[in-house]
Amino acid sequence: MKTKTYRDILKWGDKREQKIDDATLKVIKEKFSISDQDLASKHLFGDTEVKLEKTTSLSEEQINDLKKIAGSENIFTDDFSRANFSYGKYYSELLLLRKEKIPNPPDAVISPKSHNDVVKLVNYCNKNKIPIVPVGGQSSVTRGLETPKGGVSLDMTKHLNQVIEVNSVNMTAKVQAGMFGPAFEEHINKLGYSCGHFPQSFEFSTVGGWVAARGAGQASTGYGKIDQMIVALKVVTPAGVIENKDYPSNAEAWDTFPLFVGSEGTLGVITEVTMKIKHLRPENTRYASFVFKTFESAVNAMREIMQSEFGKPHLFRISDPDETDIAFKTKGFDEKFSNKVLKALGYTSGERCLMFVSVEGDAAYAKFVKKKIKKTAKKNKGFYIGGSPTKNWLKQRYSSAYMREPLMDLGIMTDTIETAVTWDNLINLWKSVRTYVYKRQKVVLMSHISHVYENGANLYFTFLSPMEIGNEEDDYKQFHKGLVYAIHNNKGSLSHHHGIGRVLAPWMKDAVSEEVLNAMQAVKNHFDPNGIMNPGGMLGLK
Amino acid sequence: MKTKTYRDILKWGDKREQKIDDATLKVIKEKFSISDQDLASKHLFGDTEVKLEKTTSLSEEQINDLKKIAGSENIFTDDFSRANFSYGKYYSELLLLRKEKIPNPPDAVISPKSHNDVVKLVNYCNKNKIPIVPVGGQSSVTRGLETPKGGVSLDMTKHLNQVIEVNSVNMTAKVQAGMFGPAFEEHINKLGYSCGHFPQSFEFSTVGGWVAARGAGQASTGYGKIDQMIVALKVVTPAGVIENKDYPSNAEAWDTFPLFVGSEGTLGVITEVTMKIKHLRPENTRYASFVFKTFESAVNAMREIMQSEFGKPHLFRISDPDETDIAFKTKGFDEKFSNKVLKALGYTSGERCLMFVSVEGDAAYAKFVKKKIKKTAKKNKGFYIGGSPTKNWLKQRYSSAYMREPLMDLGIMTDTIETAVTWDNLINLWKSVRTYVYKRQKVVLMSHISHVYENGANLYFTFLSPMEIGNEEDDYKQFHKGLVYAIHNNKGSLSHHHGIGRVLAPWMKDAVSEEVLNAMQAVKNHFDPNGIMNPGGMLGLK
Repeated sequence: MKTKTYRDILKWGDKREQKIDDATLKVIKEKFSISDQDLASKHLFGDTEVKLEKTTSLSEEQINDLKKIAGSENIFTDDFSRANFSYGKYYSELLLLRKEKIPNPPDAVISPKSHNDVVKLVNYCNKNKIPIVPVGGQSSVTRGLETPKGGVSLDMTKHLNQVIEVNSVNMTAKVQAGMFGPAFEEHINKLGYSCGHFPQSFEFSTVGGWVAARGAGQASTGYGKIDQMIVALKVVTPAGVIENKDYPSNAEAWDTFPLFVGSEGTLGVITEVTMKIKHLRPENTRYASFVFKTFESAVNAMREIMQSEFGKPHLFRISDPDETDIAFKTKGFDEKFSNKVLKALGYTSGERCLMFVSVEGDAAYAKFVKKKIKKTAKKNKGFYIGGSPTKNWLKQRYSSAYMREPLMDLGIMTDTIETAVTWDNLINLWKSVRTYVYKRQKVVLMSHISHVYENGANLYFTFLSPMEIGNEEDDYKQFHKGLVYAIHNNKGSLSHHHGIGRVLAPWMKDAVSEEVLNAMQAVKNHFDPNGIMNPGGMLGLK
Repeated sequence: MKTKTYRDILKWGDKREQKIDDATLKVIKEKFSISDQDLASKHLFGDTEVKLEKTTSLSEEQINDLKKIAGSENIFTDDFSRANFSYGKYYSELLLLRKEKIPNPPDAVISPKSHNDVVKLVNYCNKNKIPIVPVGGQSSVTRGLETPKGGVSLDMTKHLNQVIEVNSVNMTAKVQAGMFGPAFEEHINKLGYSCGHFPQSFEFSTVGGWVAARGAGQASTGYGKIDQMIVALKVVTPAGVIENKDYPSNAEAWDTFPLFVGSEGTLGVITEVTMKIKHLRPENTRYASFVFKTFESAVNAMREIMQSEFGKPHLFRISDPDETDIAFKTKGFDEKFSNKVLKALGYTSGERCLMFVSVEGDAAYAKFVKKKIKKTAKKNKGFYIGGSPTKNWLKQRYSSAYMREPLMDLGIMTDTIETAVTWDNLINLWKSVRTYVYKRQKVVLMSHISHVYENGANLYFTFLSPMEIGNEEDDYKQFHKGLVYAIHNNKGSLSHHHGIGRVLAPWMKDAVSEEVLNAMQAVKNHFDPNGIMNPGGMLGLK
C-alpha cells in the first residue's frame, strides 16, 4: 500500500498534481525574480507519512456506541482519516499541513448512512458533550472545519449523496446535503434541468456546504446566491429537527430557515436541501465580452445595467486593470483580437478592464438582454470583443484552485479575500485595498467583481507574493490582518460568499455589532445548549 | 365639538362613508335575497359616543415619566385616543366596535418624536414591565394591534414619518418607519423614483408596518415581497438596538435582520427601513388582460410564464370563475368587449377566468415580456382582451376596503383569507376551500391569485355572507376556523402576506412545528426577556 502523506491531504480536489502553465510561470518569474534554479526546489513539500501525536480521546465504549448507530464500517479513527478531516483549504491550513502540524485532529470521522443516523448521532453527542463538525467537500477557506476541541467530523458525502425527489411541477429538487455539485447537476441534467449554482469549488463542494457557507455561484447575478435558490431545509439540531415547508413565500411570522443559511455548522447538521431548478438550455446562452478604458467606467456600466430593469445577466464580471493585464498575458486574450487596435483606440494596459457576460434562460430573452447590455456598455465606451473571451474564461473556470500547490511549492503565498460593498463605496474600497497591498514588495494583486446587485457588488481580491521563508505563518497572518482592516474600514462586509469561520471570527463583533452578536449567541444557545456544534472560535461565538 | 363615536374608529382609511355601487348592490340583493326595506336599516351602526370602562392603569408617576421622554403633547390617555388604538381592521374587531365592546384598551397612546425617544421608551417600559405595541397605519387584519395586557400603543406615524436619505448611486431610500405609503412615494417620485410596493392598504399603511407584517404589493411578482425590497433595518429592542448594514448581500454568518421581517411588533420597534427604489417610468408600463377557458388553464399559463425565464410580469393576477363572473357583472368588463363573442368561442360564464398583467421597468423590456406573455397565454387558449381591463382594475384598486362598512351595515359578513401554496397543491387547495365555503348557504366566494413565484403562488379568498343576526361573532368564528383548516389541511401556509397576529396564532404550532415555535420563542426571550413587546397571544408565542 502506498504511504499516505500530508501532501495527499493538502492537494485540491481530485488530488491531481498540476503544473503552472508557461505563460503564467513567465509572469511569476518576472514579477518575483525567480530563477530556473529556484524552480527545481519544492518548498515544504509535505511528502512524508501522516502521523498524529494525539490519539482519539473517545473511550472504547463511546466508539462502540457510535458504531452501533452508524455501523462499524462507517467510523474511522486511524491517523490518516483523522488528519484528512482536520482542515479545509485555507492558505494557513495548507501551510500547516506542509509543516506537518496537526495539533487538533478530530477523534473520529463518521459517515452517517441516513438522516435518522444523524439524528441519533447528534442526540448521542449532545448527551455526551462530544463536538460535531458537519463536513461536505472540505473546500472551506475560512477554517470552518477545524476541530480545536476534537470530537467527531461527520462526513456527509459518503452516504447522504442522493437526489430524493425532483418535482417537475414546482421545478424544485430535494437533495441530500452530502451530494457533490457535479453528481447533482448530472442527475437533474438527465431530466432536462440545471441547478444554476456554480461556485468555483463546484466540483468539490456539496449542496449542504453551499447552504452552510452561504455560497455564490458564477451565475449569481442572474439566479441569486444560494440564499435565493433554496426553498426548504431539513436540519438536525440538538434542540430537535427543524424542517420548513417548500412554500413559494409566506407570512407565518418571521422565517426560521434563513438562520441556517450561513450557520457554518454551528447550529445543526443540514441533511436535506430543496432547491429551485431551471430548464437546461445551454444552447440559449449568449456570451459577450468587453474592454473598458478604466475600472470606473466598467463599474458605471455594470451599475447602469443592474439598475435599468431590462433583465439581468447571469454571469457578470469585471477584472480590474491588474487582473486584466495578467489575463491578457496569461490567458491568451491578446491572441484573440488585436491588442494594437485596442491601444490605438485608447484602451491602454494598466487602465483597461475586461468585462465578461452571459445571459441564460429563454433564447429570445438572452438575445434581448445581451443587446441591451451591449448598448449600455457602448454608452460607457466599452469595446465589444465578442463572446469567445467569456467562453474561454468559463473553460478554465475551475482550474485555478489547482495552482495553489505548485505556487506554494515555489514558496509563493497565494490567497484570496472578498467582500460585498454598496456602489457608493466600491471604488474607494478597491483603491484602499490596492494601496495597502502594494505597500508589500513583490506582490501581485488581481481584483474582480463577480456577483452584482442593484445596490452594489462584491469585490474579490487574489494576491500572490513570495513567502517570508522561515516565517511563513506569521508573515501571512500580519499581511492578511491588514487586508481585513482595509476592507472593514472602507465599509465592506467581512465576506460576500466565503463565510466567516475561524479566520474572520475576531472581526465579527466590530462588523455586526455587539447586539447582533448577542442575538446570534442566543440562537446558538437555543439550538445547541451544550455547545457541541462546530465549537471553538467559530463565527465569533463563545 | 363633534361627538367621537365607535363608527369613527371602525371606518376605513380616511373615514369617508362610501356607498356600494349599483351593480354590486344588485348582485348582493339577488344572492342574499335582500329587500329594499332591508337596505334602509343599518345593522350595528356604532354611532354612539366612545366611553371606556377601563381607566388607564398607569400611575401618575409613570405618566409623568413618559411625558418627560416624549413630551406631554405626545401622550394621550383620553377615552377616544385609547379606543382608537385598541384594534386593527380585522372583521371581528369591526364587529366588536359596532357592538361598542372595548374591554382591553391601551393605557396610553404615545407618539415618539425620534428614534432616541423610542430607545428611551422601550428602556423605560422594559424596566417597568409596561407592554408596548408599535402601531403604523392600523390596517392589520390579524388582530396584531390589540392590547390584551394594556400598556402603551406607540403611534409611529405622527413624527417618525420622514425620508432620511435617498441614495441615488445605490438606488436606496432610508425612511422612518411611521411614514405612510403615499407620502413616501410622493417624496421619491419627485426625485424620479418609485418604491414599487403597493399593497391594497398602501394609502393607509406605513413603511414599518409593511416590514413588521411582511406584506406584499400588487407588483410583487416582479419586485418581490417587502422581504426582497429592503436592504437594512434599524430596530429598537429591549436587548438593544439592532441595525444592519446596507450591503447588497453578505456572508457574515446568517442574517439577523430577517428576524424582524414578520415579527409583528413582538421583538422590537422598527424605526428605520432602507428600501431599494426603482426608476419612476410609468409611461413604460405595458398592460395585458386575458380570458381563459378554465381556472386550470389560466394557472397553467401562469406557471409556464413564471418558469420560462424570459423575464417576469410585475402585476400578475388571475380571478377564479366566481370572481370573474362577479367582475363581469359589477366592474363593467362586459361593456368593454363582446360577451357574446367570448361565449361563442367557448369562454363560458362559470368557467372562464380573467388574467391581469402589467410589465414595468425598461420600455423595450416591458414590450418584450408582454409579447412573450401573450404568446404563452395564447398557447394555453388565453383570449387577449387588451390592456384596459387591467388598467380599470388598477383604478379601483384601493377602493374595495371601503365597502366593508356599507356591507356590514347591511348585516353582511365580509372578510378575506389568504395562503401561499406550491403549484402541485394549488388546484386541490382552491377546490377544497370552495367545497367548504359553499356548504354555507347564501355565500359569495371570490378567489384570485395575485403574487406569483417560480414554484407556486398565493391564493386569496374573499367571502360575503349574511351575518347570523344576534350570533355574529360566534358564527363568524366557527366559519373562519373551518376555512383555516381547509387551507392548512391542503398544504397551504397560514398566510402569504397578511401575517399571523392573534387570529392565526392558535394554528402556529401545527403549521411550523413545535421545534420551530420553540426557536421563535428563544429569539423572543432574547430580545424581549420581560415579554413587553406586543404581548398576549401573538404569533403563538407564550
